[in-house]
Amino acid sequence: MRVLGIDPGLTGSGFGCVENRGRAYYKLYADTAAPPAGLPLPERLAAIRNFTLEVLEALKPESVAVEMLFSHAGHPKTALQMAQARGVILEACAAAGASVVEYAPRRVKQAVVGAGGASKDQVARMVARHLNLKEAPANQHEADALALALCAHFVSARQNDKR
Amino acid sequence: MRVLGIDPGLTGSGFGCVENRGRAYYKLYADTAAPPAGLPLPERLAAIRNFTLEVLEALKPESVAVEMLFSHAGHPKTALQMAQARGVILEACAAAGASVVEYAPRRVKQAVVGAGGASKDQVARMVARHLNLKEAPANQHEADALALALCAHFVSARQNDKR
Repeated sequence: MRVLGIDPGLTGSGFGCVENRGRAYYKLYADTAAPPAGLPLPERLAAIRNFTLEVLEALKPESVAVEMLFSHAGHPKTALQMAQARGVILEACAAAGASVVEYAPRRVKQAVVGAGGASKDQVARMVARHLNLKEAPANQHEADALALALCAHFVSARQNDKR
Repeated sequence: MRVLGIDPGLTGSGFGCVENRGRAYYKLYADTAAPPAGLPLPERLAAIRNFTLEVLEALKPESVAVEMLFSHAGHPKTALQMAQARGVILEACAAAGASVVEYAPRRVKQAVVGAGGASKDQVARMVARHLNLKEAPANQHEADALALALCAHFVSARQNDKR
């Protein structure tokens, strides 16, 4: 199974793709969409949409994993900026015919670290360990995107166990 | 000049287009994009984007007026849902090559009603008066969209006066 995790953000959106062979998980791809901050907002959003469409076209993931929208996100202004990027990314998934699954942040941390209250550093370290990476993810956006993809894999593996 | 005002919302996005001949202002168009609530979120956002592209293609406005994003919007969850729709609408404007202007809610009310703290009912009534409408706008989304378009016209008229 091939899952693309996406961590939406206006200044940087993380993309990370994970494929499995049985219980072994491999990083196929990780990158960050970071349109120049000097561009007008509509152009930045268009750049994020185009980036998303190109990644979906190149990787053709079975599913796309994104974080659920939480209203208690720390910084209201940042959360609203993020939500605009999230809207464009979800719309691009629909336009490309990709199916989207959403996970709460605590569930992602629980799946990847084993603790719903894990720190961002712990998430990044465990992502590197699960994927057997020589180097940590390039930034927090890519670490979070890979964690989302891993979470979707682990949830799917557990559902298969139960059958 | 032809201005399209847009009031983004996930359950209903208002569109209203106003054209002027001198100091007379006419409603060319008003409608609401309201994709079925039962659709998955990515599909709803795709419907809003397509609606926006169709309106832009049909009307070819000189500019598009939207409300500025405010972090102190009353209901955080509603504000985040709105921001997702806003992202898709702004992206569609970029994709269609339409130029976007943003106005603070207080400035729109000041321009249309003459009071920054005007109620939604007052805005709707004054929109109908400015545009010489026989009936009030169909709903609050369309009233707000027409108010945004009127605000852009009034700002432009005042700038011309100063030249």
